[in-house]
Parts: sequence; structure tokens; C-alpha cells
Amino acid sequence: MSQFQLIENVGVTWAKGFKASGVKCGIKASGKPDLAILLADEEVLTFGSFTQNQVVAAPVVISRKRLEQNQFTRGVLVNSGNANACTGTPGLENAQKMLDLAEVEFALDPQSLTLCQTGIIGVPLPMDKIEAGFPALSQGLSDEQNGFSEAILTTDTCIKEMAVSIPCEGGEVRIGGSAKGSGMIHPNMATMLAFVTTDLELPESFREEFQAIVDDSFNSITVDGDTSTNDTAMLFSSKGSGLRYEDLTLTEQGAFRKALFFVFSDLAQKIVKDGEGATKFVELQVKGALTRADARHIARYVANSKLVKTALFGSDPNWGRLIAAVGNAGIAIQPERISISYDDSYVLLRGEPAATAQETLDAIAKLKSFIIKIDLDLGDAQSAVWTSDLSYEYVRINAEYTT
Amino acid sequence: MSQFQLIENVGVTWAKGFKASGVKCGIKASGKPDLAILLADEEVLTFGSFTQNQVVAAPVVISRKRLEQNQFTRGVLVNSGNANACTGTPGLENAQKMLDLAEVEFALDPQSLTLCQTGIIGVPLPMDKIEAGFPALSQGLSDEQNGFSEAILTTDTCIKEMAVSIPCEGGEVRIGGSAKGSGMIHPNMATMLAFVTTDLELPESFREEFQAIVDDSFNSITVDGDTSTNDTAMLFSSKGSGLRYEDLTLTEQGAFRKALFFVFSDLAQKIVKDGEGATKFVELQVKGALTRADARHIARYVANSKLVKTALFGSDPNWGRLIAAVGNAGIAIQPERISISYDDSYVLLRGEPAATAQETLDAIAKLKSFIIKIDLDLGDAQSAVWTSDLSYEYVRINAEYTT
Repeated sequence: MSQFQLIENVGVTWAKGFKASGVKCGIKASGKPDLAILLADEEVLTFGSFTQNQVVAAPVVISRKRLEQNQFTRGVLVNSGNANACTGTPGLENAQKMLDLAEVEFALDPQSLTLCQTGIIGVPLPMDKIEAGFPALSQGLSDEQNGFSEAILTTDTCIKEMAVSIPCEGGEVRIGGSAKGSGMIHPNMATMLAFVTTDLELPESFREEFQAIVDDSFNSITVDGDTSTNDTAMLFSSKGSGLRYEDLTLTEQGAFRKALFFVFSDLAQKIVKDGEGATKFVELQVKGALTRADARHIARYVANSKLVKTALFGSDPNWGRLIAAVGNAGIAIQPERISISYDDSYVLLRGEPAATAQETLDAIAKLKSFIIKIDLDLGDAQSAVWTSDLSYEYVRINAEYTT
Repeated sequence: MSQFQLIENVGVTWAKGFKASGVKCGIKASGKPDLAILLADEEVLTFGSFTQNQVVAAPVVISRKRLEQNQFTRGVLVNSGNANACTGTPGLENAQKMLDLAEVEFALDPQSLTLCQTGIIGVPLPMDKIEAGFPALSQGLSDEQNGFSEAILTTDTCIKEMAVSIPCEGGEVRIGGSAKGSGMIHPNMATMLAFVTTDLELPESFREEFQAIVDDSFNSITVDGDTSTNDTAMLFSSKGSGLRYEDLTLTEQGAFRKALFFVFSDLAQKIVKDGEGATKFVELQVKGALTRADARHIARYVANSKLVKTALFGSDPNWGRLIAAVGNAGIAIQPERISISYDDSYVLLRGEPAATAQETLDAIAKLKSFIIKIDLDLGDAQSAVWTSDLSYEYVRINAEYTT
């Protein structure tokens, strides 16, 4: 079926040419791991996709600029527990200093690393603790399991990793990834970070494919509709496999792109599924739109409706809320053309209630995971988002957290 | 201070020239009142403002068209318990038949009445019950307290009325209003209905003032960001006071407009405050925007953020969520110019954390009611919305309701 194999219990270091490390340096009051590095053995082509929020944290300013200047890096430094957002000029200076210190510690050229940070907003970085943590971080470097995936977490309840192998005529291509982000979006802004490595040598022109894959995976999940000041997805491409993308057969290139999408999607879905509060995983498909952008906008709007999300939590096939949210999304529709189904059972058929038995709908709405399909019947464009429900736990976690 | 007096325990029948009635006809399984009429003694000038949702219920289709054809009506027929939305052509036919029957019962000319309906979506109207209820509705007609305000409710926990008198040189002008809509938005879509009467004879050109007042009151509340298929606000103007708007002094005209805005605002705020789940009432002001539309969009976006609303519930002055929501709203901003305060205590001053003591902020965030001010420092335009928090009760009520 698939043209790639799943590899268990490994993340960013599965692809050849990468080492990683994760340690505790004391940023988190809980004493959990909070400092990590992904380090390539030599310079690697690096693609980055950053938050669309206009309020961006210092590490986003610095990493985005760094990749605009030069797409080759030695990897990324990460800390959890502090987002270094809304920290003004001192925040930018601290972020740069943190990178400078790390480059000295790891004996790298200046400007070798990018930076990601996640955690509370508006609090200065504890620079002394971070600096004191570097020697242990350096000692922990390894191409085995190494604590990286754990040290990037905030309130996630589990690490999120995925790795695959793609057999090719010329050898094996590997892809591995680690991500963080809790379905419950906490603390503050649910920063989502994803780091994916491959040992297939990619061309710079792969940027377009990278962005499309990020859009269809990482950018297709919506838990509460807000985008963090720190969201970042990165892809690092080493030469570890000895193979170049351009030299693969068309079939192999297709298999690689499919595998890369699978890794990003899997990490994205793990983010939606994580969190004590998320009791449902729902794919919301919108088809029959005039443009893909319309389909996407409506899918996100409906998935973010509090009334829709509480109905999901209540296992209630409440299609009245779905159709009303579609009507509110701000895209021109024709209500009398719309059909809606839960999995394959229609609730609305061209604008009027369908004859599906209530028991059938109730049974689907009780499932842990199902698909809601909305057909606008206006055109051929479609899109889908993955979302979760709005539960008591969501409120508890987000209400109890204090700055 | 104010140029008008508050009158207690009365609603739409305070203004001269109006009678009303409310009875139980059995639409609601609970047996609570569910059929109401506001009837003017003679034809009255009628202004209506309807939902912006593209999916509109049958009564909205009919009433909107009726007012486009002729602005003079004898009032409005209302039922609760069934929204007559997503009911297709039979729904439109039922709505028209309901009006026809009422016009016979009340001995009115055809096409005399408008119609509002609120309740569950996608279920046919029980026409036999409604028809059987008309004689009692007719017998109950009165210019005293009459059950109207109660019969329009759905899950509201209390009736919502306001009435005022404006002393004028030539006599007294009265305004009275009744509204429904629960902070918890249930069942389905939190339909908001507001009916305001006055015995000041208004000119047709007052439509612009009416729409501006609705925008600044009824349209300035946001509980969960969704607009119902049935939302309607109406203003009825009789000649009962013997006074015409054009004949009032400029001061008196100002006092009337102020009083009318007060009545609409009071009813709107009562909607936000109602509902077991709403524990906070927050005014969210956005100023320093380039346009009023920008300010309004940002205010609504921030007020609808689930992260912001759960922080309100948690009494947490979590300004990180506020600034991040501002950055996500899709309007160009300059983060380094933004200031934010809770009541008069700054948390963010031109993009950087302010020095206000945490205890001060905590104390404000614990209040039942406070103001959040966001200054974009880009221009002179401003807007405000009234909102509530997102509580366990919100989730419970909206998750437990089943279609």
C-alpha cells in the first residue's frame, strides 16, 4: 500500500547526519527538561515556515531573518518554558546572546543556528540558567534517543515522534520528526513546533513543496483558532543517504513527497489528539467550493465555532450548528444547495433535513473519531481541517493557568 | 444626569398605543409560554434589523420582505420553542399560514403582521398547536403586564425588559422594550430578539439612526461569535404621545436618541449577563484604529478568542492572550505601538510589559465586571463590544443539549 515503512521509537535523529540532545536547565519551575538542540554534522539545507501572527516572538524574528539570508544552517536550538515573546529589545538581545553562547559551546561558526522558544509570554529569559545548561546539552549529543523530543514539550502529555524509511533503487532515504503542541493550547498560546529531518539531499527549489506540505498538515489543524506568536515548522535536509532528490525516479520522488506529508500529518494529528481535554478527533471536509481558499476558510470557521465544538464534546450530531456556522463564515453560499453528512450518513440534503435515522447519527457522533463532510455544491474546490472538541478540561486548563 | 426616567416592571406596553399578550400553546415540551403577540392599536412605523447569517430562517425571509414592501405594520407575532429554520419550502408555507391565521383571529387586514421565531432548528412547526393557541392569545391582549416578555424566552433564566420616560415640553414620550437571548446561546443558536416600542411619531428617515443604535447595542455583544439564523431587532413607533420627532427641540431629540440607545443597550447587556454560565461581564474597547471597522473587527475577534474567554473565567489578567489575539485578527497593526490596560491599570505600554503590580491586576480580573482597553496607536477610530467569559457551564449547557 504505502511505499514507505514506519520506524518506531525514534524522531529527528533517524535521518543520517543529525545528532540531538535535550536536558534540564531550570527554565521550567517543574524541573522538567527544557533545553534542546538538533545539530547537523555539516551544513544542511533548511526550510522554515513561521507563524502568521503579526505579533511574533524574538526567536521567530531572528530565525526568519537568518533563513532569508542563508538557507544553510547547522540546526536549531530550542527551549521550552519561556516563549521570549512581548519582551521587547532585551528579548531580541537575549535570543541573539543565547545563540552566540551555543555556537561557542558547540564550536560552530557564528550564525550557524536557528532558534525556537515556547512557553510563557512577557517574562525575561533566565539567561544564567540557560548558559549553565549548555555543557550538559553538549555532552548529551547523540544520534540515538536523546531527550530532544521531551525537552521541547510544554504541557503536552506525551512526546510526538514519527520516522519512516523509503526504499529507493540507490539505497534508503530516511525521514524523522519531532513536534510539540498540546491540544489544550497551554500555556498561553499553544505554540506548535515541528522539526523534520531527512537525509535525502533536496534542492532549494523544494521550498514550494515544503510550504504546500506544511499547509496541508501543520496548518490544517485547529484547536482553538488562535495562532501562537512562536509557531514554527522546519525541515532539514542532509546528504546522509548519498542520494539527491533530482536523481530519484519520478515514482521515488512521489513516494518521498508522500512520506514527508505523512510525517508532517502524523505529527500534526498527534498535536490535535494530545491534551487531557480533547475527547474527539474530527476531520472536517468542505467540498464543492468555488476556490480552495473558500473551502479552507469555511472549514476553519466551522471547526472553530464554540457551538460546534461543544456539540462534538456532547456527542450530539447537531447539524443546525454546522449549517449556521457555514452561513456565518463570510463566504457566499447558497443554503438550498448545501448537503452535510457525518461519515457517510446525510443529515442535510440540498438544504433540507435528510431522512437518516437519529440512532445512526447518534452512534457516529459517539465515536472517538469521525468525518464531517460539508458539500457546498458550487464548484470543485475542497479542503479539510483536523480539529478536536471543546470540553470541561479545555476550560479548566485554560482558566486555571495564570501568568 | 440623564434626561430620562427609568420605569420599572414594564416592557413593550409602556409606550401608548400598544397591547401585548403571551400564552402557552404547547410548542415547548416544558409547557412554558411559547406564543406571543405585540399588537399596535393602529398601523405603526416599523424598523427591522435582521441577522447577517446567510442561512436565514423562514420568519426572517418573510418579515424582511414585508418591511421592504411597506414599513407600516400592526406589530409582530412571536413563537419560542421552534426556530422554523432549515425547514425548506414547507417552513415558509407554515410561517405564512401562521400569519394568515393570526390576522383572521385578530381581525386584521392581510399582511398586517411581521413574524419572529426562536428555538430548535430543522423541525416542522406544530401548526395545530399554534392555531389552537390563538384564541387564548387574543383573550390575553392587554396594555398591562401580559406575559409577552416571558413567552418569547428560550433558555433565558429571566425576562429582559426596560422602559423609560422622556419629559418634553409638549408632554411625555415613552419607550419600552422586551428582549430574549441567553448568554449561553441555547438551544442551537442563541437567537437574540429585541422588540422596542415608542409612542413618539418617528419619520421614515429615522431608519439610519435606528440602524446605528442597533449596531452600537444589539450588534455589539458577542457571547460566542456566532450569529443566529433568526436574530431580529425591531422598533415600532406609534403616535400615542401626540408628539412628532420633528417637532421636538434639538435637546429633546438628543434626549430621545440617548434614551432609545439606553433601552437597546440595556436589553443587549442583559442578554450577555444572562445564563448560568456567564460569570463575567467585560467591555472590550479598541481605540487608536485607522477605521471604526478595524476597531470593531479586532474587538470582536479578541472577545471571541477561546483563550481570552477562558482567562476571563479564570480571573487571570493574561494579556499575552490579548496581544496574541490582536496579532491574529487580520488587521495590520504595529505591535510595538500597542498599549493594553485592565480598567485603568496598564499591562502593556507601547509593546512592552508595564510595571503595574500583579496584585492590582489580579484584583481587577477578579471583578464581576471590568473594562479591557486596547490602544493600537495608529489612528483615531474606536469601537467596543460587550462580552462574557467561557465557563464550565457554557460547555455543559451547549454539550448536553441534543437536537
